[in-house]
Amino acid sequence: VRILVLNPNTSSGVTDRVVAAAARVAAAGTVLVPLTAARGVPYISTRSEATVAAAVVLDMLAAEADGVDGVILSAFGDPGLHAVRELFDLPVVGMAEAAMLTASMLGRRFSIVSFSRGLGPWYADCVETLQMSHRLASIRLLDQDPGSIDDVSERKADLLTDLANRAVEEDGADVVIMAGAPLAGLAPRVRDRVSVPLVDGAEAAVKQIEALVAIRPRKAVAGSFVRPPPKPSIGLSPALAARLAHRDRVPDEA
Amino acid sequence: VRILVLNPNTSSGVTDRVVAAAARVAAAGTVLVPLTAARGVPYISTRSEATVAAAVVLDMLAAEADGVDGVILSAFGDPGLHAVRELFDLPVVGMAEAAMLTASMLGRRFSIVSFSRGLGPWYADCVETLQMSHRLASIRLLDQDPGSIDDVSERKADLLTDLANRAVEEDGADVVIMAGAPLAGLAPRVRDRVSVPLVDGAEAAVKQIEALVAIRPRKAVAGSFVRPPPKPSIGLSPALAARLAHRDRVPDEA
Amino acid sequence: VRILVLNPNTSSGVTDRVVAAAARVAAAGTVLVPLTAARGVPYISTRSEATVAAAVVLDMLAAEADGVDGVILSAFGDPGLHAVRELFDLPVVGMAEAAMLTASMLGRRFSIVSFSRGLGPWYADCVETLQMSHRLASIRLLDQDPGSIDDVSERKADLLTDLANRAVEEDGADVVIMAGAPLAGLAPRVRDRVSVPLVDGAEAAVKQIEALVAIRPRKAVAGSFVRPPPKPSIGLSPALAARLAHRDRVPDEA
Amino acid sequence: VRILVLNPNTSSGVTDRVVAAAARVAAAGTVLVPLTAARGVPYISTRSEATVAAAVVLDMLAAEADGVDGVILSAFGDPGLHAVRELFDLPVVGMAEAAMLTASMLGRRFSIVSFSRGLGPWYADCVETLQMSHRLASIRLLDQDPGSIDDVSERKADLLTDLANRAVEEDGADVVIMAGAPLAGLAPRVRDRVSVPLVDGAEAAVKQIEALVAIRPRKAVAGSFVRPPPKPSIGLSPALAARLAHRDRVPDEA
Amino acid sequence: VRILVLNPNTSSGVTDRVVAAAARVAAAGTVLVPLTAARGVPYISTRSEATVAAAVVLDMLAAEADGVDGVILSAFGDPGLHAVRELFDLPVVGMAEAAMLTASMLGRRFSIVSFSRGLGPWYADCVETLQMSHRLASIRLLDQDPGSIDDVSERKADLLTDLANRAVEEDGADVVIMAGAPLAGLAPRVRDRVSVPLVDGAEAAVKQIEALVAIRPRKAVAGSFVRPPPKPSIGLSPALAARLAHRDRVPDEA
Amino acid sequence: VRILVLNPNTSSGVTDRVVAAAARVAAAGTVLVPLTAARGVPYISTRSEATVAAAVVLDMLAAEADGVDGVILSAFGDPGLHAVRELFDLPVVGMAEAAMLTASMLGRRFSIVSFSRGLGPWYADCVETLQMSHRLASIRLLDQDPGSIDDVSERKADLLTDLANRAVEEDGADVVIMAGAPLAGLAPRVRDRVSVPLVDGAEAAVKQIEALVAIRPRKAVAGSFVRPPPKPSIGLSPALAARLAHRDRVPDEA
Repeated sequence: VRILVLNPNTSSGVTDRVVAAAARVAAAGTVLVPLTAARGVPYISTRSEATVAAAVVLDMLAAEADGVDGVILSAFGDPGLHAVRELFDLPVVGMAEAAMLTASMLGRRFSIVSFSRGLGPWYADCVETLQMSHRLASIRLLDQDPGSIDDVSERKADLLTDLANRAVEEDGADVVIMAGAPLAGLAPRVRDRVSVPLVDGAEAAVKQIEALVAIRPRKAVAGSFVRPPPKPSIGLSPALAARLAHRDRVPDEA
Repeated sequence: VRILVLNPNTSSGVTDRVVAAAARVAAAGTVLVPLTAARGVPYISTRSEATVAAAVVLDMLAAEADGVDGVILSAFGDPGLHAVRELFDLPVVGMAEAAMLTASMLGRRFSIVSFSRGLGPWYADCVETLQMSHRLASIRLLDQDPGSIDDVSERKADLLTDLANRAVEEDGADVVIMAGAPLAGLAPRVRDRVSVPLVDGAEAAVKQIEALVAIRPRKAVAGSFVRPPPKPSIGLSPALAARLAHRDRVPDEA
Repeated sequence: VRILVLNPNTSSGVTDRVVAAAARVAAAGTVLVPLTAARGVPYISTRSEATVAAAVVLDMLAAEADGVDGVILSAFGDPGLHAVRELFDLPVVGMAEAAMLTASMLGRRFSIVSFSRGLGPWYADCVETLQMSHRLASIRLLDQDPGSIDDVSERKADLLTDLANRAVEEDGADVVIMAGAPLAGLAPRVRDRVSVPLVDGAEAAVKQIEALVAIRPRKAVAGSFVRPPPKPSIGLSPALAARLAHRDRVPDEA
Repeated sequence: VRILVLNPNTSSGVTDRVVAAAARVAAAGTVLVPLTAARGVPYISTRSEATVAAAVVLDMLAAEADGVDGVILSAFGDPGLHAVRELFDLPVVGMAEAAMLTASMLGRRFSIVSFSRGLGPWYADCVETLQMSHRLASIRLLDQDPGSIDDVSERKADLLTDLANRAVEEDGADVVIMAGAPLAGLAPRVRDRVSVPLVDGAEAAVKQIEALVAIRPRKAVAGSFVRPPPKPSIGLSPALAARLAHRDRVPDEA
Repeated sequence: VRILVLNPNTSSGVTDRVVAAAARVAAAGTVLVPLTAARGVPYISTRSEATVAAAVVLDMLAAEADGVDGVILSAFGDPGLHAVRELFDLPVVGMAEAAMLTASMLGRRFSIVSFSRGLGPWYADCVETLQMSHRLASIRLLDQDPGSIDDVSERKADLLTDLANRAVEEDGADVVIMAGAPLAGLAPRVRDRVSVPLVDGAEAAVKQIEALVAIRPRKAVAGSFVRPPPKPSIGLSPALAARLAHRDRVPDEA
Repeated sequence: VRILVLNPNTSSGVTDRVVAAAARVAAAGTVLVPLTAARGVPYISTRSEATVAAAVVLDMLAAEADGVDGVILSAFGDPGLHAVRELFDLPVVGMAEAAMLTASMLGRRFSIVSFSRGLGPWYADCVETLQMSHRLASIRLLDQDPGSIDDVSERKADLLTDLANRAVEEDGADVVIMAGAPLAGLAPRVRDRVSVPLVDGAEAAVKQIEALVAIRPRKAVAGSFVRPPPKPSIGLSPALAARLAHRDRVPDEA
């Protein structure tokens, strides 16, 4: 089973971190294929950056879906998730979606904890878009400038652990999601220091995509996620234009 | 990894069917341990039968949790799910919960299809209790007497397939859940005859419990799923009384 | 009019307290018949204890429904309420349901006040199950160990009154419910010390069951609360097995 | 116990009908005091007519609240309900509110059945205002011109009974409310011909106001239903002007 | 284009203030026609006062709708809004409705800021009635006695500005509505002192009614806002009685 | 006042149609500046096409916002709306947003009518994203292939009018939105043939952007729509890269 770990951020360090965290819990036989965005920003934090990233995700996947069994979108706000689910024939999960669904099996309400205040509006929109607001206890973010994302997970581990415990005590969280691709791998390291179950986005994502790949869902040929009919386009990347025009290759089904 | 497949129905035929369906998608290394209720009704269909079953589930798990890494409640309405999650230290999923969360990653709205009209109110309550009503397109049930549950899956396969396709066309479902333990294994057999992805409860449950076991969530020592403090009781099964009184054994954590 | 006051707790002192509180506002002609659980825990506080109690409620009512016109479930979280409403032909109310509906006629939003922090998750689930979350201002619970439930109502009266007033001032409650069977009778004693109307669960329950009995609702023979068809069972109490199998007696209707 | 049956319609025939229906289920000792609007329309059917009626209700109650223990607003859409609850010191219920809360104790979802299509928008708004939309299965109304409201209850009994049964079968109602003051008394007459429990607005209203009077709720002196501070006015009825200005009489409390 | 600025308060000073604020942003060609209530209270603050005012609004408009192209209800809680929309053939907006819809285009969530704590319950009900609760961050009100409404806007400008900024920082507001007719014109004066966009009710109302007038919506002859059929009445104002009886004049359409 | 009519579709014919429809109701002094996408698809119909378009919108606006007072996104699903609102300092409205908010002032519930079944999922997502689901009566779409979008408005006028009337009669719509940029200008042409008010997206959009421009909202410097801090990027259009990096020009505020 080959899983594409598609990172819409341009930092390959973040990709490595997600792959490493996912690998620790992946099933035997799961191969993780890293792919880092060549266009965009180093680390997506806002609605407008995510809007740019969502289109980049479609470009990347149009070019690189061959020989892959499933896709992880490895940015917590899941840019382009529903568009990918519509346009392509592969199972796909986002890190936010996977984390929130997994958290739902560990308690009634979860909190989302991350390292930068600027992530708040985008994450809040993501919870709404994924229709999980009724399970959200709170979003808790560090106030200070996080510094480099390369080692924020190590430098801020104590503060993030404190924040998680405060989400439990003050906001009523039964579960805490350590959110944001740069924090991949943190949750299992601090699990004994937080009073409720922690969910790591990378871990949740690999287990959920394994679940989807295992049940071999067919591509919808009806309903709202049917592949759009062929359409011409101007000025898009060759691979994406081909996919939109149904010139890419015979689809997996139908 | 040992997974207890706890069937709150008294029919061991249903247990076998769930285990067989789950085994086909289980990861290498997953061992499924069947356990059929010794008290209760052959097949739970209503709120009152599920209320009885929920207490039986606690009895069974108090007696049989040793040496197990996770638990599947193998009845679609998930009797006793939140009580188990509170009282025991093991990860647990219900077939309804697992199926609905898995379906959420395959489309916006799902329908639930099953074989007997009498299941409707209990399933509807279950969707509400699990807070998934916003994702539900419809519950579609066969009108006629289903006959024996032992082979309902084979006898009614065509009618259920039709029902699934009508849920897509008339109710707007993006995904269809083939619900009810006696239908375990049906979805993969008819997947090419329905126009959207199908979800099988047994398959979803084993993949979701594997996911939970893999991430090793700690037992909450705060929040709403903390284990209740020790309490005396009268007239309950010895194992359950011991669990309530904290006389069972040293808990996994704390 | 004979009303069964069915206490799913095993403490008869709590039953006496509920009956006394209810009797003070009961109509002339209402006879309250106390019945205390012979199995279970002295005082239900959690989801898992309530799960056990719900099955006990069905056993008790299967054995004791003869000659009764209506039933009060006298534990605030209403264990087994919908199952009873489905399986039996009698009107039934729970103390939580009765209190919340009554409170709805006295203001827009109510708070629930009680004596032990451990009750929080169960009460919160109960508010959701009864679909009253949109009316809930807050659940406020005393933090300290409540000590014996026999006289918690007297020992903690001042603290509970303070809590009620804080729910008004800080949480926006228009009404306060003094919740939990051990607090039955407290609300009328402290009514002049709280700035908004108080609702006592026992008082509300007896008035609501009187209302239901007076309007003589027929047992549904269609819809989601129809009595389940006959079903065999194994290992259940003789009375409950008979009720499930339709061997109990001619039902009231049909 | 004296209960004012305040009819915001100008038809005294409707008042008589409500009083008669309520009297059949009232407790011993309950005295029903009829009061018919002297201003307004014979039978309120729309938002604009209800808006006029709500102000008339305040006028009537300002003049006639003396010596009364509780108030029933005897028009199904409950014109002025929350305003009365705020401005006066007496318990008050509306027929719609009482019917919907009572129905909530007899099933999960109720339908509202009445005799004229024109009532639909007003009733729909009323269900929303009273925050009961989540319990509503449907509003079913006769299509034809209802003719005189004086005997619509007799002439249309069969059609209304059919409508109630269709609400059960097609809309999933567990309970049916026979709505509209002109239908007061119909539900008990046809109860055996409908497959689920029926609720009569007049019956529900008298039992619910008896419940409120019995528990003697204090008038809020905080929260959102506190009596407004004194205020001058121009051109209003003398009694209402006096009530607004706190020149009426010493309030019951404070 | 002639717009009636219908003030349901009896203070003509408030009318003048609203007209002046609206005029500053009105399009060329918009003529604002002030109309102050001759009956009622100087300044509406509560549900019961708004209930009286709603009926007065219908009286006023029945008498004065001639020659007018659209109507602004110039009290923030929009008394009688839906009744006017049903009974009359003219476009109408309320200040609360216009402000909240306008705020929706400037951010995700808005706060409502005003000068008197007593306005809270009425405003909260208004947000619910207009179905905008999901966009509301908070209602923030000054605690102290506001003193005269004639110059509260000037005297309290600093405190209201502080309150607006606190709504942003503590409640998560993206936009702040300066609410209440006496504050008309304040928002543009303090716009540079608040960190998010401000909305002025009078400004929003005139732009929204201009929008409605420009698109020339037809009066509904079907659906829930169709004009009610003719109805007799007793004791109402001659103009309103004529409107209810369809004796007023040929309606604009049909 | 200069309003940019930014068409994310590549068909300039659609742009012309929107500008013409908007011009008919624009205020004196409003100048409409058309801008058609140079990249993308001729007509956006699906989630994936809208995802591509949203990024194109940011590119276009980064290059062309100079000298403009406000922006209309002239595609009904409003691609990129919230990202624009965050990243730029100008007021912006989408056609869907403007139409739905305008419809809210003309009735309780609206239907959306358009010409192609394929638009359904994208429009449904858009209603949810804009948090207007509670006001939606239905989405009604023509079943047949619409043919060329250039004259679909003329060829399908009768069928669309029928669909609008059916939405009123069968779905309970009080208002109907004629949705989709190719239908701009249709609503005013058929207004007398539909029984409720119609809303035209282009008309609504120009009036709503005029409203926003008139009230001169400041750019948020706090809250969730604050402009993101400067960020480097790779491979984006020079104008967008400059905007993200704060190298574009001095922002309007701060």
